[in-house]
Amino acid sequence: MSDSSSYTHADAHRRRRGALAELLQAAELDALLVTDLRNIRYLTGFTGSNAALLLHTAGDEGTVFCTDGRYTAQAACEVPDLTTVVDRASALALARHVAGDPVRYRCLGFESQYVSVEQHAGLDETVGDVELRRSPGLVERLRLIKDEIEVDALRRACAAADQALAGLLADGGLRPGRTEREVARDLESRMLDHGSEAPAFPSIVAAGAHSAIPHHRPTEAVLAAGDLVKLDFGATVDGYHSDMTRTVVLGPPAEWQREIYELVLAAQRAGVTAAVPGADTVTVDGVSRDVIAGAGRADEFLHGLGHGVGLEVHEAPSLARTGAGTLAAGMAVTVEPGVYLAGRGGVRIEDTLVVRESAPELLTLSTKELVVV
Amino acid sequence: MSDSSSYTHADAHRRRRGALAELLQAAELDALLVTDLRNIRYLTGFTGSNAALLLHTAGDEGTVFCTDGRYTAQAACEVPDLTTVVDRASALALARHVAGDPVRYRCLGFESQYVSVEQHAGLDETVGDVELRRSPGLVERLRLIKDEIEVDALRRACAAADQALAGLLADGGLRPGRTEREVARDLESRMLDHGSEAPAFPSIVAAGAHSAIPHHRPTEAVLAAGDLVKLDFGATVDGYHSDMTRTVVLGPPAEWQREIYELVLAAQRAGVTAAVPGADTVTVDGVSRDVIAGAGRADEFLHGLGHGVGLEVHEAPSLARTGAGTLAAGMAVTVEPGVYLAGRGGVRIEDTLVVRESAPELLTLSTKELVVV
Repeated sequence: MSDSSSYTHADAHRRRRGALAELLQAAELDALLVTDLRNIRYLTGFTGSNAALLLHTAGDEGTVFCTDGRYTAQAACEVPDLTTVVDRASALALARHVAGDPVRYRCLGFESQYVSVEQHAGLDETVGDVELRRSPGLVERLRLIKDEIEVDALRRACAAADQALAGLLADGGLRPGRTEREVARDLESRMLDHGSEAPAFPSIVAAGAHSAIPHHRPTEAVLAAGDLVKLDFGATVDGYHSDMTRTVVLGPPAEWQREIYELVLAAQRAGVTAAVPGADTVTVDGVSRDVIAGAGRADEFLHGLGHGVGLEVHEAPSLARTGAGTLAAGMAVTVEPGVYLAGRGGVRIEDTLVVRESAPELLTLSTKELVVV
Repeated sequence: MSDSSSYTHADAHRRRRGALAELLQAAELDALLVTDLRNIRYLTGFTGSNAALLLHTAGDEGTVFCTDGRYTAQAACEVPDLTTVVDRASALALARHVAGDPVRYRCLGFESQYVSVEQHAGLDETVGDVELRRSPGLVERLRLIKDEIEVDALRRACAAADQALAGLLADGGLRPGRTEREVARDLESRMLDHGSEAPAFPSIVAAGAHSAIPHHRPTEAVLAAGDLVKLDFGATVDGYHSDMTRTVVLGPPAEWQREIYELVLAAQRAGVTAAVPGADTVTVDGVSRDVIAGAGRADEFLHGLGHGVGLEVHEAPSLARTGAGTLAAGMAVTVEPGVYLAGRGGVRIEDTLVVRESAPELLTLSTKELVVV
């Protein structure tokens, strides 16, 4: 029996709101005006395109959800347990609610990393004497640690990508003569077949010399025998993203191709092994990077090792030389070292994993042995 | 020979920057810090995911473009004519540039409708004694009127949608037994075949009673004989969006289906005819709405008549009862009335068009006669 069966989605949303209320109390806020749609989805399950949430430290009795008339039926279904106001100007409507009860809302936090200067001016005018306080990153702090419902969504997103790649290979979809764009569309279509709502990001398919460009966009370039083909792609399930890179070779690999492949694979395994609770994010990056540097290829791996993944495809924590912070159980991150030989080709190998007390749990399960097509 | 052949894209970007410099002078700003990526694309042609532009009223000699190291080669190709700084924190880097020359930049505008409160705090700290002034919507004012290069992109985006629909119908892709989701994927795939970069927005395919839901999302519901099927979809070309709705019927139409179809078609034609330079946007909405109200169906058409379309799929001007403003030659708008009978079915018919001195130029050219499949 999986952990996720022990409570429902509604339970999870309620628990997250409770955890946020504790953060608000610690920050001496009476309430938080949540306007970022991903944060609202995290706290309520609402999936529409217009909403705001006024979360009071006192709990759900003081908490108000707002969306517009297009979503009345959807809100009743997705957010049955909160008081709901219907208004197109959702954040301003909740600001008026606050202004109407200034004793209860003396100090109101807002998501200052998202609210624009113009929006803030409108809110400030509306709340009257209530203090509006910059409160960035509170929900994001909770989102760092995934609960089992979130991990389950990530697992299904990763499985959709795994199945898409397996099908592509089994059906001969990776072969000389196809274009990068054709392969990208094929992968994206197969992910949809396996339950993905949309690509997690624009898929990267990079063949031959293009594989040496870290974030190459697929072109009409034709795959040729002897090419390394780098595939970096992901699915979205319940709003959660997967992110996986595999690099295959079309035909027997040249010596240099096998060499950098084995090097990147060793670096990737070292990075995965280092991703344990308590590990410093800079150190995890360094453990993997050192493997590549030890082969004299430090200058051929210039990007970060990985990043958090969840409701955003790139979120905290960052595994990079410039990062900061410590890993904890329940964080979901990518580990994706690469070696890029300009003009020749490159290899990147990337997994999405969950940090666990025992050992990292890989969510992307496609083989990392060199696949020769 | 089309108008667009008379100047190049680089000319267009330069001309747009010149027009913006005039707006800045009128607003008594020395420069504008442009941070919205669509506005940057409009002014420079840059298509990457991180950039900022410091546009000085004195012209391109005082204008600085910034992006990060991933885009050095791309910027050299796409923005060859501007001084370029490479820095990951692009807006802050340009704020430092401003701080270094406070005589030249006494008053700096910023896009306060997009810049967050946190970003603004960082900019404010960085520019020192330079005055940072809220300056929302300046580039958007220029974007209201499309030049011929923009209309050409819109035309190609509309053609991709037209061709996708024609192919879908010709190949029997709309038939009882397929699901809404299958039809949506088929349309999106066909748009890609015809040059679309991505769907302009999540496609709407709504069959039977679902067609009465204005913004229904495609489900596993199966198309059945007798259904109205509403298809609202669009393509993206060079960053410009198309937006078209057609409603077809599977098999001989029932009397009520034909009746509301003809009503919506009459309202749509009235709206298109009213979209001329000088027309008040509220009036255009009213002309079309009155046709539906005249048949006693005012309560079955509750959304706005249309919206501007360009680098955003929804942009100014709004054609709605709550709108304001006047149409001018070169504006690109949708006209999309609908009648929705809850529980039974609905019809919406939508074109994207360009307002012209003579008569509106339709960019979506699929037939608006009732298609019986």
